[in-house]
Amino acid sequence: MRLSDIAAKLSAEVVGDGSIEITRIVHPADASGGGDLAVALSKDAAETLVGTRARAAVISANAARPAGLTVVAFGGHERVAVSILTRLFDPGPRYETGVHATAVVSPDAEIGAGVSIGPGSVVGPGSRIGAGTVVLSQATIGAAVTIGRDCVIHPGARLGDRVRLGDRVIIHFNTVIGSDGFSFIPVRNPDGTAGARDIPLRTHSLGTVVVGDDVEIGAGTTIDRATLRETRIGRGTKIDNQVQIGHNVTIGEACLICGMSGIAGSSVIGDRTIVASGVGITDHVTVGEDAVILAGAGVVSRVPAETTVSGSPAVRHELNVGRVMDIGRLRMLYPRVDDLKKRLEALEKAAKGG
Amino acid sequence: MRLSDIAAKLSAEVVGDGSIEITRIVHPADASGGGDLAVALSKDAAETLVGTRARAAVISANAARPAGLTVVAFGGHERVAVSILTRLFDPGPRYETGVHATAVVSPDAEIGAGVSIGPGSVVGPGSRIGAGTVVLSQATIGAAVTIGRDCVIHPGARLGDRVRLGDRVIIHFNTVIGSDGFSFIPVRNPDGTAGARDIPLRTHSLGTVVVGDDVEIGAGTTIDRATLRETRIGRGTKIDNQVQIGHNVTIGEACLICGMSGIAGSSVIGDRTIVASGVGITDHVTVGEDAVILAGAGVVSRVPAETTVSGSPAVRHELNVGRVMDIGRLRMLYPRVDDLKKRLEALEKAAKGG
Amino acid sequence: MRLSDIAAKLSAEVVGDGSIEITRIVHPADASGGGDLAVALSKDAAETLVGTRARAAVISANAARPAGLTVVAFGGHERVAVSILTRLFDPGPRYETGVHATAVVSPDAEIGAGVSIGPGSVVGPGSRIGAGTVVLSQATIGAAVTIGRDCVIHPGARLGDRVRLGDRVIIHFNTVIGSDGFSFIPVRNPDGTAGARDIPLRTHSLGTVVVGDDVEIGAGTTIDRATLRETRIGRGTKIDNQVQIGHNVTIGEACLICGMSGIAGSSVIGDRTIVASGVGITDHVTVGEDAVILAGAGVVSRVPAETTVSGSPAVRHELNVGRVMDIGRLRMLYPRVDDLKKRLEALEKAAKGG
Repeated sequence: MRLSDIAAKLSAEVVGDGSIEITRIVHPADASGGGDLAVALSKDAAETLVGTRARAAVISANAARPAGLTVVAFGGHERVAVSILTRLFDPGPRYETGVHATAVVSPDAEIGAGVSIGPGSVVGPGSRIGAGTVVLSQATIGAAVTIGRDCVIHPGARLGDRVRLGDRVIIHFNTVIGSDGFSFIPVRNPDGTAGARDIPLRTHSLGTVVVGDDVEIGAGTTIDRATLRETRIGRGTKIDNQVQIGHNVTIGEACLICGMSGIAGSSVIGDRTIVASGVGITDHVTVGEDAVILAGAGVVSRVPAETTVSGSPAVRHELNVGRVMDIGRLRMLYPRVDDLKKRLEALEKAAKGG
Repeated sequence: MRLSDIAAKLSAEVVGDGSIEITRIVHPADASGGGDLAVALSKDAAETLVGTRARAAVISANAARPAGLTVVAFGGHERVAVSILTRLFDPGPRYETGVHATAVVSPDAEIGAGVSIGPGSVVGPGSRIGAGTVVLSQATIGAAVTIGRDCVIHPGARLGDRVRLGDRVIIHFNTVIGSDGFSFIPVRNPDGTAGARDIPLRTHSLGTVVVGDDVEIGAGTTIDRATLRETRIGRGTKIDNQVQIGHNVTIGEACLICGMSGIAGSSVIGDRTIVASGVGITDHVTVGEDAVILAGAGVVSRVPAETTVSGSPAVRHELNVGRVMDIGRLRMLYPRVDDLKKRLEALEKAAKGG
Repeated sequence: MRLSDIAAKLSAEVVGDGSIEITRIVHPADASGGGDLAVALSKDAAETLVGTRARAAVISANAARPAGLTVVAFGGHERVAVSILTRLFDPGPRYETGVHATAVVSPDAEIGAGVSIGPGSVVGPGSRIGAGTVVLSQATIGAAVTIGRDCVIHPGARLGDRVRLGDRVIIHFNTVIGSDGFSFIPVRNPDGTAGARDIPLRTHSLGTVVVGDDVEIGAGTTIDRATLRETRIGRGTKIDNQVQIGHNVTIGEACLICGMSGIAGSSVIGDRTIVASGVGITDHVTVGEDAVILAGAGVVSRVPAETTVSGSPAVRHELNVGRVMDIGRLRMLYPRVDDLKKRLEALEKAAKGG
């Protein structure tokens, strides 16, 4: 790709020869060939390129422009440039259009134009796969599943019966959408009263999972289907690896759910909420829109909109910071109280004696 | 299914026409067709059905009976009714009896009557699969594995060599039973003394995992095999998604282990114990029968029978609630102590001056 | 195997008949046949063997030697003996050399001598698999992947495009190496400022994961590839089940990372560090060499070398132990301060009155 074309995608200007042909983007330390475009947007990064074989770099519009290098001077945030550049140079997964000879596709499945079904993948009866969607190898599409257009289903992903995906959804390796919910009546209830008679009594999951357009779900994540209705993942929401989402949960649009977080049954997460890593959200709670749940938090009650919480049990972040500091200061408090007591006793003794 | 037959399964009476043919059960808000049976057991739910196309509902025996609707009046707990009703209407996974053409079954494996081995599944040498068991697509049954009758093994499940499952066991998508235990001698021990010489020294896992009758294990869970003997999951125990169970662990009967909990090597969990979500239980501890471990707890020492614990490190729940409150009150304690100190100093000054 | 040969591997002496043929090693309680070698190294374990059908045991060189039993007297640590003995008797996974008829191997992949590619496994274009490596069934090797010699890739493992493994690497069931990093610009930043316009903006992962020699990675673990460079797992490091390692992370050599721990993007873990179970390490932090992170810790800032930390937020372990004790003592502190206040008020009243 010509450097000038790349600059256009960044809405940035080329200082130097825009006709250079770029074959890959690299970290400044790896710049070695003539086709390398170094991404040197962080402070002082551009300087490290002087004397290397790199001929071109993307640098901050505010940075000094190193001599001898053609630069694209980018005025925005570094992360935006990296997003645009990595999208331009992502080769994507390799696949061939059509149904692989080793795939097992139900005769009544509807397969759209330009679809790829990879080696060993299985598509169940009554399922529909939209045009341009790529199902890579060894994935499972259950019965009566609907997948939209231009999705990518990575190897080992499992879509349970009746699951529905929108358009441009990405499901990563070994992720499970539409497993049965975990809903049992215990033999003895937590409050000590009798529950089921002999072994825990099972509630079956007759519902499904509905995933909106432009959702991406990382590797090794599991999302259970609803009891009667739908577990819902809203449009544009992005979910990381090893996240667990229980049955009947509703997640809004454009949320970010980071790795190893769990959301228990029937909870509702508002639009644009950010759930950091290792968070646990209990069942039947509501998290408002634009909330931020910080890493490791244990949410056990309602989180209002636009609120940042942390700690376990989670409270407003400022309050939790105060608590952590209060705990740290305890080490000094105990001797202070001991000292007060001693002095008080001295006064008491003097008062008595006097 | 006739409504009167459904009522019989619920040991409940029909008020109205018991001959109605029911084709599905639905949430009240979704009731739309003549064959819909609305599950409207929660308070006031039945009223919402008036004026919809639904002709029938299951309501609480205590609720007012809405006019124009045939009802099944159920006297028990809502969850019990939902369990029975969802079991009646669960279509279950779709499969065909027999070994699929793309499955790879060892010639010396013993396959019982009515067994299904789905597309791409592999059954290793010396394994035995009991009558009526369904192995869906793309699952792995290792060597010398024994599976009982009427089990369901979902796509992507992996059973390691020598694993033994009882009857009516359900293993969900991408779950692993019988991976090697994580047992290494570090290069430097945690106490600073020398351990293995160069890289951590491996202990191999020669044992296996034994799973009792009527056990269900959720999606993406991993259970390691024992070093010499057996990791054991007792009869009727139900395990959720993304649970990790270490080598040599013994879990009793009829337990519930919720999502994202981990039980480290050689620990023992008593019968009917409930482990909520996101719990960590360290190695070599014992949890008694009928204990309840609340969400997010970190168990580092013995939990007595019939005890509820929470927090990290976990303590009796009442004690932990007290601790959380004690921490919350610290914010007020510091100024109180400051105030006492000031007043004490005033008294001291007066005493000296006097 | 002859008992004398086993003793030689342990650098220990046989007391009795070294010519006994041993067919398996067992826990003392399971010793039943003439070919059983009981591993009875713990205190008093050897005594339990008297009167059983076992003819041989490995006991501690310090233990009393039970009459009637041939013993191997081992002078080292029990765990070292178990490591050596379990390695000797591990049958390993079963496989056949060569490419299985149902495997799908790209024509331009390079497959080394003695390699096994199991049923249903897929090897992508441009990949190279070193001599003696075993890819068991239903695994995915992406495009342009390099695997060294004598590795074992278990069923359901997924290696993304461009991943590189060293020699003697073990990847367990359903583990993912080389999934895309989770890197998005949110619609609204956590500080409330505007981020991406409509849905979170994606950064693509062009880099890869590089795994050193003698690394072992447990079941259900996920490791994301780097944005531009390499996520790195150092030589000899051992990783447990359900661990999540973010993009751009560097883990040193000979580390132990226990189950259900997560290390977020761009963090660096020093050589020989031990990360216990359920630990969360935030992004962009450094953990020094020979550090120990105790179970459940939440690491949010730099951990110096040779330091043991615990708690969340993690601090030096002694400090955290003190904090937990300080919290436990709060229950007594509040009444003490109340008492001081009362007595102070009495003094104040007396002072005023006097």
